[in-house]
Amino acid sequence: MSTLNRINRLQSMLREQRLDGFVATHPIDIFYLTGTMQSGFLVVPAAGEAVFYVRRSVARAAEESTSARVEPLGSLKTWKERVAANTPALAGACALAAAFDTLVVDGLERLKAALPQASWTNGASIVRTLRMAKDEAELSCIRRAAKLVDEALAEAVPKLVPGMREIELLAEIEYALRRRGHLGLMRVRAAGSELVTGIAASGAAVAKPSAFDGPAGGEGLHPAFSKGAGWSRIEPGEPILLDIGCNVDGYVIDQTRTAVIGELPADLLAAYEASETILRAIEERLRPGAICEELYELSLSLAAELGLAEHYMGFGPDAVKFVGHGIGLEIDEWPVLARGFRTALEPGMVLAIEPKFTYPGRGVVGIENTYVITPDGFEKLTISREGLWKLQPDMGLPL
Amino acid sequence: MSTLNRINRLQSMLREQRLDGFVATHPIDIFYLTGTMQSGFLVVPAAGEAVFYVRRSVARAAEESTSARVEPLGSLKTWKERVAANTPALAGACALAAAFDTLVVDGLERLKAALPQASWTNGASIVRTLRMAKDEAELSCIRRAAKLVDEALAEAVPKLVPGMREIELLAEIEYALRRRGHLGLMRVRAAGSELVTGIAASGAAVAKPSAFDGPAGGEGLHPAFSKGAGWSRIEPGEPILLDIGCNVDGYVIDQTRTAVIGELPADLLAAYEASETILRAIEERLRPGAICEELYELSLSLAAELGLAEHYMGFGPDAVKFVGHGIGLEIDEWPVLARGFRTALEPGMVLAIEPKFTYPGRGVVGIENTYVITPDGFEKLTISREGLWKLQPDMGLPL
Repeated sequence: MSTLNRINRLQSMLREQRLDGFVATHPIDIFYLTGTMQSGFLVVPAAGEAVFYVRRSVARAAEESTSARVEPLGSLKTWKERVAANTPALAGACALAAAFDTLVVDGLERLKAALPQASWTNGASIVRTLRMAKDEAELSCIRRAAKLVDEALAEAVPKLVPGMREIELLAEIEYALRRRGHLGLMRVRAAGSELVTGIAASGAAVAKPSAFDGPAGGEGLHPAFSKGAGWSRIEPGEPILLDIGCNVDGYVIDQTRTAVIGELPADLLAAYEASETILRAIEERLRPGAICEELYELSLSLAAELGLAEHYMGFGPDAVKFVGHGIGLEIDEWPVLARGFRTALEPGMVLAIEPKFTYPGRGVVGIENTYVITPDGFEKLTISREGLWKLQPDMGLPL
Repeated sequence: MSTLNRINRLQSMLREQRLDGFVATHPIDIFYLTGTMQSGFLVVPAAGEAVFYVRRSVARAAEESTSARVEPLGSLKTWKERVAANTPALAGACALAAAFDTLVVDGLERLKAALPQASWTNGASIVRTLRMAKDEAELSCIRRAAKLVDEALAEAVPKLVPGMREIELLAEIEYALRRRGHLGLMRVRAAGSELVTGIAASGAAVAKPSAFDGPAGGEGLHPAFSKGAGWSRIEPGEPILLDIGCNVDGYVIDQTRTAVIGELPADLLAAYEASETILRAIEERLRPGAICEELYELSLSLAAELGLAEHYMGFGPDAVKFVGHGIGLEIDEWPVLARGFRTALEPGMVLAIEPKFTYPGRGVVGIENTYVITPDGFEKLTISREGLWKLQPDMGLPL
């Protein structure tokens, strides 16, 4: 893993922005920069050696870190002196950044008290920008995650029988994923947001909106986790949304397929086909230089042309305002295919693109693939068979 | 659910502390106070109606909230006027609290910009204190969670065979839990900390320390989730730590049992028995009025008397400094059985108590139960059989 290269790139960005250092506090950012996810503060000066001050476990961080030198964090009362000794550039007045989108308020207060010589600014955009383009080590994890999802669906979906509860289907999928090494959760950067593996849900239940910032919600098991699979039974003729990911060695994948036991009603089938049409149209323009916002606008105008604007990406006030999202260590990385994102695509960026249509009381249909941008265009990372998955009511096997 | 009662208790605390209101931003706190976990800001004035300003889903929040009135959050630019209209006490200069242990820095900055008339203080201790004593509705969820863990172990442990990988055993346990309605994750309040279901791991692997603030770490599957079950194989004669929880309707349980295929070495068996001895000694004093810190000190002196101080609650610098923790919607609630916690126990408080001994290179042994404090003493909520679980090497069944 080229974590040292990542530290070097971060340092260039710090120098460009005339910052003296970055203090990484978010475990995912620390992992990206060092290869270890032990707890503590990673101090990256604009030039010179990065030092990871570890709360616990020091031994484990020392074993795992591939870029930063590891020291025990020890008492915050004496930390200032140790930082100054290790990194003289931070001994006096200095400008530091930390990711304010993930650092909690009392965490920043502790940092301010410990390093009173520093002024602090929000470095969230620095680290989010840094993490946009993936390197080969990262792509390799994402490819393995894509394979796990495909294998898990191949193992679990044949167990689906009419009347099975959503949570029973999801439990089968997760069981297949977990035995193959899914880390058990998919990380979301947005504060207060959480995911396990995604959605296996159908009919009216999956069309229920949720707090989660995605086009499909799901009834969920309880208001205490009000999204994804619930207690509802999966019945013939209703769309079954299989929006499933997993986490392999830290990296997540996101893939959606739509299934049905028997046949879909004609309008939902047409909407499913529209989601493939939109995905193909985005793929045609998916290459370095394409502007994120324009891909989203393209999808909006296609949905409108197809007469489906009202159902696109959720219904009414609960519709979401994007069609794709960066993905890597977290499910909600940059860039986003949404208004306001004027970012031009670059090789290495990984995007999940997910045109979907919501019909309240009836269900959600759509498709989602994860792609990496290549010098010439894109490579599709998700590998499961596309098209509507028509299942036999008597055996549950994909046709 | 008596969420209105919870709001009323919060309001009393606000008045005692001369605060004009509390703005709940943490989804778990919002759920506790309203019964819904949709996203947004819950404004609880020191007196009068609580209003939940919902980002999404407004429809779902309105359906689920049992205490607060629900309004769309809408634009933060006009939020000040709407707050002032709904809650005149907050129209002018006012003192508001929010939980700074969970609110991220840029979240507070947005709140400050939206409500410039307010001064802000850290209300984390208010909401953590409020949530310490559980009501009957909460205890009912925790009891069901305890039953799920017991059933899942009864289903999964007989599948254990020598040479099985830790993750395979954990996958069996999670499969049994998930089909029964485990929400899929156990919430941790500490920023940057996460859990799925706990630890099923054995021998040298489980004795590896981790960033997680618990007595046992675990090798984990990868540095990207370096705790709990890993790829190691479970072999006869080594202690198997089954530190398992689940989440039922928002509430988590925590239970540890130690198992072995065949026989434990004599010193590890003695250490296991010491963990039961310590647990029994704590139980003898577990009643209203007992001081948290003193229960911890008692456990420390017993571990020392038994000649096991060096192994107690982790090894060397990675040992943790508590023997029990509050538990409810989150795994790390108040009070904590640790130095500095002078809190006197009260009826309704729920505690997981977990004396454990770590032997680097060999394993972790111990026991953990979850208890609720009653007017006369305690009630044990975890129900699995105590004592060392001795498994037959040929069939994996508990003797």
